[in-house]
Amino acid sequence: METTLRMTERSMPLYAEVASRIVYLIEQGTLRPGDRVPSIRELSRQLQVSINTVKEAYSQLEDRRLLEARPQSGYYVRAHLPELPAEPVVRKPALKPTEVNLCDVYQMVMNDLHDPDLLQLGVAFPNPDLLPIDKLNRMLASESRRFRVQSVSYEIPPGCERLRKQIARRSLQTGCALSPDEIVITSGCVEAVVLALRAICKPGDTVAIETPVYFNFLQVIEDLGLKALEIPTSAQGGISLDALEYALEKNAGQVKVCIVLSNFNNPLGGLMSDAAKRQLVELLERYQIPLIEDDIYGDLSHSDNRPSVAKSFDKTGNVLLCSSFSKTLAPGYRVGWIAAGRFQKQIERGKLLSNVATASPPQLAIAEFLATGGYDHHLRSIRRAYARQVMIMGDTVGRAFPAGTRVSRPKGGFVLWVEMAAEIDALKLYEQAREEGITIAPGQIFSLEGKYRNCIRLNAACWNPRIEMAIETLGRLAARLLAR
Amino acid sequence: METTLRMTERSMPLYAEVASRIVYLIEQGTLRPGDRVPSIRELSRQLQVSINTVKEAYSQLEDRRLLEARPQSGYYVRAHLPELPAEPVVRKPALKPTEVNLCDVYQMVMNDLHDPDLLQLGVAFPNPDLLPIDKLNRMLASESRRFRVQSVSYEIPPGCERLRKQIARRSLQTGCALSPDEIVITSGCVEAVVLALRAICKPGDTVAIETPVYFNFLQVIEDLGLKALEIPTSAQGGISLDALEYALEKNAGQVKVCIVLSNFNNPLGGLMSDAAKRQLVELLERYQIPLIEDDIYGDLSHSDNRPSVAKSFDKTGNVLLCSSFSKTLAPGYRVGWIAAGRFQKQIERGKLLSNVATASPPQLAIAEFLATGGYDHHLRSIRRAYARQVMIMGDTVGRAFPAGTRVSRPKGGFVLWVEMAAEIDALKLYEQAREEGITIAPGQIFSLEGKYRNCIRLNAACWNPRIEMAIETLGRLAARLLAR
Repeated sequence: METTLRMTERSMPLYAEVASRIVYLIEQGTLRPGDRVPSIRELSRQLQVSINTVKEAYSQLEDRRLLEARPQSGYYVRAHLPELPAEPVVRKPALKPTEVNLCDVYQMVMNDLHDPDLLQLGVAFPNPDLLPIDKLNRMLASESRRFRVQSVSYEIPPGCERLRKQIARRSLQTGCALSPDEIVITSGCVEAVVLALRAICKPGDTVAIETPVYFNFLQVIEDLGLKALEIPTSAQGGISLDALEYALEKNAGQVKVCIVLSNFNNPLGGLMSDAAKRQLVELLERYQIPLIEDDIYGDLSHSDNRPSVAKSFDKTGNVLLCSSFSKTLAPGYRVGWIAAGRFQKQIERGKLLSNVATASPPQLAIAEFLATGGYDHHLRSIRRAYARQVMIMGDTVGRAFPAGTRVSRPKGGFVLWVEMAAEIDALKLYEQAREEGITIAPGQIFSLEGKYRNCIRLNAACWNPRIEMAIETLGRLAARLLAR
Repeated sequence: METTLRMTERSMPLYAEVASRIVYLIEQGTLRPGDRVPSIRELSRQLQVSINTVKEAYSQLEDRRLLEARPQSGYYVRAHLPELPAEPVVRKPALKPTEVNLCDVYQMVMNDLHDPDLLQLGVAFPNPDLLPIDKLNRMLASESRRFRVQSVSYEIPPGCERLRKQIARRSLQTGCALSPDEIVITSGCVEAVVLALRAICKPGDTVAIETPVYFNFLQVIEDLGLKALEIPTSAQGGISLDALEYALEKNAGQVKVCIVLSNFNNPLGGLMSDAAKRQLVELLERYQIPLIEDDIYGDLSHSDNRPSVAKSFDKTGNVLLCSSFSKTLAPGYRVGWIAAGRFQKQIERGKLLSNVATASPPQLAIAEFLATGGYDHHLRSIRRAYARQVMIMGDTVGRAFPAGTRVSRPKGGFVLWVEMAAEIDALKLYEQAREEGITIAPGQIFSLEGKYRNCIRLNAACWNPRIEMAIETLGRLAARLLAR
């Protein structure tokens, strides 16, 4: 406890770092169940942080059920210490392309969305309470009145100029310096990725993509008649560059494009370092393979600053950067964008021929929100909330699921990846959970057939007693499946 | 003048029928330049219609420069009678499939949309003054407040239920009885057609389509790696069923789908009869070829009632009916729909994988407009306005363009097809017009290479002195091109 926290290097909120020190001591066995932890004043002095920071850290550890406060006595390590889950181990997939098969499981999970009685832990919706709905609604109304004719007219590609200017302005935070003319507005991030794939590939081509990966992308690849070549990725550093290079060498000429979720990838939460991003861009540049970079979770870093994007290392227009406001502002507005580098013209044409334009009023409202609505302030507040909820749900999984379960500890976004004992079939868990009124995303849909069959993805965007109970139910069901 | 107008059978507004009687008498030479026409009171008695109806008819004929009022004397046939243009003759195309080539001309015409200084006669935008912008804006605001969370959430396929119910209710007017569950909301009609093509075809397949046809569809066909088989269509009855049957026989097995614009097809304005629609549905059913029916202009009939759709004769789910609110309410809202028959599930999946969903606030606003906004009343008023403007622009073309020019006389929609003397190259006219600040749609983009090179399409949605001057300029340029 002698070291002080060096303010200059921290990448997470200070209170979270303080909390992680305590967690470390508990994990190492330095602090044991029933032990009294340093008083708030003591720790504040030791770590040279404010009283309030320590208070916040302890309050968080109480939420996580690691500490308990005893009146007039101080804070103690709880008696029933939850088993702290380790990071998931990602198994290496075969390095050859496979046709993605139409996935009935995928359809099942998506159909669950129509059932309002199910507790939705399957799909990565943001928490509605963390969306600035009323402010957006006001801006939707005021901007449509202000730009009366524009609001009902086509915003043909590249889309609303005001919005593109705001996005370009914000790109400085990601290490880019995009101009508004380099950006094309799309109807969400999925559309951006689809347009990119369609601009680059023809049926039969192979797409290099992380595994496990956001299931919609696999379905899109199948739908476009493409093949997926799965490249291992980790919950720490994202896509394995060694594996990618090896795969590119082995499949020379076949791989026509690579999709990477560079920041807080879905479902693992992996975050590529700047060095890795630069290396990735250079590697693909060398192979003349365009990179489709999905940065949809980049703004949801759990620390105060958002990470860079690989696009910031792109010198030749080989990177197509895709994102949207679906996770931070309003999924239902369907406003995303792509900075498509040397594919700009094809993307504009593709957008025009897909649906002419993205709806105008949502573009106007989001442009206004970015210009005057305090987007950075909004991000700061939702980042903290998601950081806290992801942590609490992770802890609860660790406590509720049978021994041997591992859970991701992402540094951004709001999904968790849970790897259960090899004997547990996630599809069985999905079916039994559904009977209990809970829907989850079984691991099978995050890859081609047969993989991740003992994994599930959970949406940790919301936290309340009902969800806590649901996690406990899932843990009980998993234990029962394991016992068989 | 002895016959009275039989109110029961009329399909256009009464005043328009009265006007057409006078036009007929002028065309037949019964009334000659300088002749005095019956007084308002006289004609009202003769035709057994109200004074106001005759007044409206005469006022329209004045607008069309066929009559002139002389103070204290009455109405006279104008001295310089405009040459009344005939219907265009549609030349028969070769009955074999051709690859659609990427069309630079198309890109040029679309790029013109970014130039606010050009008078836009090229693209089929509706008249902003005929869109209920303020009412829609109010509904956009009120509905987003009312459905607070829904307005920012995904309306995953099939889309907003409230909107689908309203569309289903309205389908009775088209001879269908769709249920809300048969409808999928799309981001406009183009997206509906694209989803339909992608659900049915794979690259290399052939699409039977009318010629000339809405240029975006040809670009879409090219973009999807499909081939177009052009089937003659006319400005009267739409697609030639004889030619279609002949083509299907000759290309057995190659044609995988047929696209037909059944009502007021773009660009010719042709309208299929109920009998023809039934025959078309039966023919394609026999060949087991799905029909993609585009009814986007159906609500813009110039008469009081809208025509049926081919879908109403569909007994097996073989017809995919596509439409949108882009021509009647708000192009920029990007709200369209498809009733996809036996392809429903594929379309839902395709929509999900294209962009997850259509934006929610526009869906809510249009649902409310259909439920309470007086859509039928709105349609009645814009139908009259478009009928009048299409007529006036047609007359002006007839007067301004050199002899030999033919112009369509559509019974719905708001575009005109102008066939000039064979010597005139529409692309040259396009280029020269652009230098005068006017953009038009040259005939070349309505077909594969080389066809309709002496034709242009004009947007007749707006009428004002600037547009009148532009038509006169176009006529003068055409005359000059002809003289060379």
